[in-house]
Order: sequence, then structure tokens, then C-alpha cells
Amino acid sequence: MSLTERARELDATDPLADRRTLFDLDDSVVYLDGNSLGAPPRSVAERMEEVVRHQWGRRLIRSWGEGWWTAPERVGDRIAPLVGAAPGQVVVGDSTSANLFKALVAAMRLASGRDEIVVDAATFPTDGYIATSVARLTGAVIRPAPLDSLGLNENTAVVLANQVDYRTGRAYDVGAITAQAHDAGALMLWDLCHSAGALPVDLDAHGVDLAVGCTYKFLNGGPGSPAFLYVPTRLQASFDQPLAGWNGHSEPFAMSQEFEPSSGIARGRCGTPDILSLLALDAALDVWDGVTIAEVRAKSLALTGFFLDCVDELVGSRVSVVTPRDSSRGSQVSLACDGAREVMDQLIAREVIGDFRPPNVLRFGFAPLYGRYADALRAAQTLAQVLG
Amino acid sequence: MSLTERARELDATDPLADRRTLFDLDDSVVYLDGNSLGAPPRSVAERMEEVVRHQWGRRLIRSWGEGWWTAPERVGDRIAPLVGAAPGQVVVGDSTSANLFKALVAAMRLASGRDEIVVDAATFPTDGYIATSVARLTGAVIRPAPLDSLGLNENTAVVLANQVDYRTGRAYDVGAITAQAHDAGALMLWDLCHSAGALPVDLDAHGVDLAVGCTYKFLNGGPGSPAFLYVPTRLQASFDQPLAGWNGHSEPFAMSQEFEPSSGIARGRCGTPDILSLLALDAALDVWDGVTIAEVRAKSLALTGFFLDCVDELVGSRVSVVTPRDSSRGSQVSLACDGAREVMDQLIAREVIGDFRPPNVLRFGFAPLYGRYADALRAAQTLAQVLG
Repeated sequence: MSLTERARELDATDPLADRRTLFDLDDSVVYLDGNSLGAPPRSVAERMEEVVRHQWGRRLIRSWGEGWWTAPERVGDRIAPLVGAAPGQVVVGDSTSANLFKALVAAMRLASGRDEIVVDAATFPTDGYIATSVARLTGAVIRPAPLDSLGLNENTAVVLANQVDYRTGRAYDVGAITAQAHDAGALMLWDLCHSAGALPVDLDAHGVDLAVGCTYKFLNGGPGSPAFLYVPTRLQASFDQPLAGWNGHSEPFAMSQEFEPSSGIARGRCGTPDILSLLALDAALDVWDGVTIAEVRAKSLALTGFFLDCVDELVGSRVSVVTPRDSSRGSQVSLACDGAREVMDQLIAREVIGDFRPPNVLRFGFAPLYGRYADALRAAQTLAQVLG
Repeated sequence: MSLTERARELDATDPLADRRTLFDLDDSVVYLDGNSLGAPPRSVAERMEEVVRHQWGRRLIRSWGEGWWTAPERVGDRIAPLVGAAPGQVVVGDSTSANLFKALVAAMRLASGRDEIVVDAATFPTDGYIATSVARLTGAVIRPAPLDSLGLNENTAVVLANQVDYRTGRAYDVGAITAQAHDAGALMLWDLCHSAGALPVDLDAHGVDLAVGCTYKFLNGGPGSPAFLYVPTRLQASFDQPLAGWNGHSEPFAMSQEFEPSSGIARGRCGTPDILSLLALDAALDVWDGVTIAEVRAKSLALTGFFLDCVDELVGSRVSVVTPRDSSRGSQVSLACDGAREVMDQLIAREVIGDFRPPNVLRFGFAPLYGRYADALRAAQTLAQVLG
């Protein structure tokens, strides 16, 4: 069967094919950058209109008591099943970097006596920057280590790792690495930016201690939409975070001078939540109703697998495949080639939108809710043309 | 002249009267809570539609290079003239609490050797909570002090004060208090949440060292819209803040492992900016085009003064006036009475919307861009009815 025939058949039998109609995405565009900015669900524009004109315009300040104040926990509970968390353990707000800061300082306070923060050597840079800042404030020491060889020891307080490597697309085993951390007596903090909404995470099942993630990639919350923080119930009472603003207070409107943290996940909150962005995210999460992460993962592997087949056949040795060919990959395929930055510019000019990451990587992200096999084929065909 | 005649004449001759048409606010509502959540400028709903449907939906990831990435500084430059700052010194993003955290840690690093943080004793609580958290991380000591009697000494590192007391509505002299801090060799950090957009601040003229403020009160940015941080040019090179995420890096897309802060105000950034909220704020700021803060202040004093006259005549001794009667007041009037919480509930049920603050304060905020003298009169009339 030709690649064209395979693409047609795969799209025709795709159980998630109807989800694409929930997105406001031009048919002419091959959008393979949902791992950086997810496409807009159609419900978002309408919801924003409702929030601005009705909730803000008509109800004014009263809306704070009509759903706004508790939105960080309520939207968190909608993300929870996507990352394998029971309700009451995920809160939405602030950026991933700010949540990493909260989680890392809290981890250092939990791990008294130990002073080493082990950071995934291939981490997305902000994790390392924030870890360095936390180390400076808490007297900890940073040790970068490859996830294949962490070298944990009796001094390791916490391990900070990314489930999916943002550059290579390699996916790591959350259960196995969490177990390693626990065996060494350390806490495990996962950054789920490149996996939430694309891969099973199973935070509760693996006994993960802390996690953060963004919502603007595979969760389609919109540009810079608020991030999430996971603190399991068992650690909430001892979760002692440094961005302890009035929103994390047990009685914020008592306006008391002493800070008394909320008893639940709300203690992960800091300042007043960004309601427009938060409710845009809330609307965007509607696309997950009735979908399981297992289905999403199955399609993700099929899509990226088919793309690899197309690349092998149409592009061949003009690129090297960076992403693992076995199932230890996230929902992206990274290809390395010379002049990658210019190659990506030319792909984008032809409406095949992926992105470039230094030094020489072309990234193609596949969002299973709106990605099509025909897109994978056209991307490989266009890449072959561009490479000449 | 009766109060009714005065209200009519004042509204008829109000040079800012036409601004109200820029807001999407029901005529039937007396909205006096713009000091908590500003009313929506009409431009916001339309801009959100444009941002979601066009910028996000059609341009997708490309929008980051078409205005999104630099929005925190660009929108900051629109707020700058409203707080008396030259361009390049204000950045927008994160919450007020998060920006306070950045500013206070940076202040402690600038003030090496001194370890006392003096906090306005009547501060909005989050400032005290965040200062306490910073003290714990940096080894500093907190000393609450009334702004009338700061008792600064050779150990004071930084003074954190609110220009307007959120409860009483009293406004403080930014120049005089800043000079006191500087005379003691301390840094001055202002919280402008209750003054930005309502009172002159003149940050540059007074040589203020650091400032933060929210944008959802008198700046009408929307519920929980991103806050701003002011760092004057002279301090930017030494502004060393702890939420040093990838957005504050000098070359964020180089994805380097070492953090090298941006040379300008962008080093105040942390994670990816919340674009929907940020561009809603951008649209909301259009209402300031062609308005000076001096005009706003003049109307604010006239409005609150007229409201005090109405209260004196119609309500009399059933309430006590908490806000100063001279010009040392912000753009709100606070009245104390027994059962204030229930009184406010009844006012709101009659579409006179202010708010309650413990223990016994009714707050009436007057936003000069959309507040009317007729509103002030109706609020006092309704209050008189409610108090029976």
C-alpha cells in the first residue's frame, strides 16, 4: 500500500478523527507545533465573549463569588484525570516556572538534612534556572544528571525530571524513575509540560511527590495559559511553599495579618488568579470530554510511527532521526539536519508548521486530537522538497 | 443648591464624562467597586475575539514573533506614564504577590549587610505574607510600622508601603516617605494596587527604587489581570530576582544551560506570559488615551468629596467616615458602621455595588473614568434607606 493510501485509510478509521472539528484550525495548514502552542478549541472564543460581556460586564465583582474564586481548583480537577490524579490535588495558576519554584522550595523544606537537587541534564532550560535560584536561596547544591544514570545518594533531596525531553522527544518511565528516587530516600518532582495531554502519566499510581506542567501545549489552553501544580493529598499538610500570597490563605477575606495556609491544594495558590486565561483553559478542556489518555496515546504512537515511515521513505538519510523509534517517545518526532533553522523557515513558508530547536533539530509535534495522518504525509513530502 | 441639582451640574460639566461610553457598564448599576475590579472597557471583548480567532487561530505559533513575545514590555510602557515612569522600566506579568516576591528578594540582595524589612502596618495582607516568606528565605527580620512613624534605622534594608490604604482609603505622600527611606539608607518599594490609575505616583520624579501594582482595579484590565513591576533603569543591572525563569533570559531561545539575565526590564519576567489576559489589559488601556492623571485626580477628589457631602447630609451620624476628609485620600471612601457586612449585602441587592472589609468597613470606590456624580448621590440615598 502506498503512503497516500495508508494515510487515507488511517484517517478514515481513526477513532479520534471527529475531534478535529472541535478545533478552529485551517484545513490548509499542517500544524505540527501543538507541542509548543496547541490549536484553539472552538469553544474558547465563545466562552471568552461570555466571560467578558456577561460575567465581568454584567455581574462585575459578584462573579468572584459565582465561580471565579474557586476556578483554580475546579479547572485543576478537570486536568487531574489526564495526569492520573484523584480530585483535590491539582491547582491551576501562575507559570510553570513559578510553580517549579514553589515545588522545589517546598521539596527542600520537606527533605531536611539533604541538600542536593538532581536536575535532568537535558531539561528544558527554565527548570535548571529555577533550580539554581532555589539552590541559592536554600543552600542546596545542583547536580545535573542524565535520567539514564542519576547517581542518587543519601544526600539527594529531590529529583527534577521532564517526562518527555523537549528536544529529542524521548519519553521516560515515570514509574521507574520515581521508584529510583524513592529508593534513595529522595522526593520526585516531574515536569509534565511535554507530556500532559499526550501520554499517560499516572501520578497517583506511581506515588509521585510533586509535579508541574503547562497547559498551552497538548492541553490547548492558549498562549501562556496558566500552569498546573500537583501536590498529592498525603503531602499537602506539609507542603510549605514560598509564594505564599493571600490566595493560599485558609481564609483569604479575613484579611488577617498572619498567614495560615489553606488545608488543601489551594495552598499552592499565590495571588489573584488570571480569570480570562483560566476560563479560556476551562473551555479548552471541553475537547477531552469522553476521551481517554489511552486512546490518545495509541493515536500518538500511530501518528508519529507513520510519520517516521514517511520520513524514511521520502527523506531518507538527508536527516537523522533523533527521537527513539521504539515506544519510548513522546508525541513529537525530532529530526536533525544541517541548516535546520532555514529548513524550518521554508517548511513554515509552505504551511507545514513545526519548530526549530538549537543546534540542529526540526521538531514535529503531533497532537492526537486534531492531527491527521495526511498531515504527517504532507509534512514528510514537503520536507523532501525543501531538502531538494 | 440641592444635592440633586449639584449632581446634575457636576455631571454636565465633567470634562471626563464622555469616557463612560468607552465602558460596557449598565446604566442602572451604581458601580463603586472599581477599586476592587474595574469595569470592562468595550474594546476588550472585541480584542479578545481578534486574539483568539485570528492571532491564535490563524497565525498559531507565529504570533509569538508578531507581538506576543514582547507584550510584557510593550504593555508595561503603556502603564509607565500613568505611574510617572519613563519607558523601559515597567514590565507586566505574574500576580502582584509574585512581583512583590521578586522585588523584595532583589531588594535584600541590593541591601547587603542590612536585614530589616519594614512593612506598612496597615498593609494589604498579601504584602505582609510575602515579606514574611522573603524574610524566612533571606534571613531578614520583618518589622511592621505605621507609615506615620516608620522608625527607620541603619539596619533597615527596604521599606514596603502601600500608597493608598486599602481599608481606610488614606493616601500617603510617596515623595516624603521615599525620602525618609533614602535618608536612612534604605530602599523604597511601593505597592500601587490602590493608586495606579487613580492618583499621581511620579515614580521617577521621587526616585522610587521599586514598585509593583495590579491592573485589575483602576486600570480595568479584567479579573486577575497580570500585575506590573517597576525597576528604574539605574537599578536594572543590579536587579537580581529569584523567579529567574527563561523569559528573563537575555537569549531565551538559545536554550542555554546558564542563566544570563536580560539587560533591561525583561529580567523581571519569569515564565511564558499569559497572552490572553495581557492583551485584554492592552485593549483596556485604550481608555487612557488622551487623559492625564492630573485630570483623573481632580475628578476623583471632586467625586469622593461630593459623596462625603451626600453622606453627611443624608446619612449623618449613622456611619463614621474613615477616609480622610482632606485631600490625603485615594479614590475611595470608607465608612464604618455596625453590621457593615449585611448593610453592604443590602446595598448590592439594590444595585449599589461597593464592598465590605473586616471588621466594619463599607468601601465605595470611585473610578473617575466612568463614575458619575449621580452615582455618588444614589449611593448615599440608598445607604440612608438601608440604614432605616
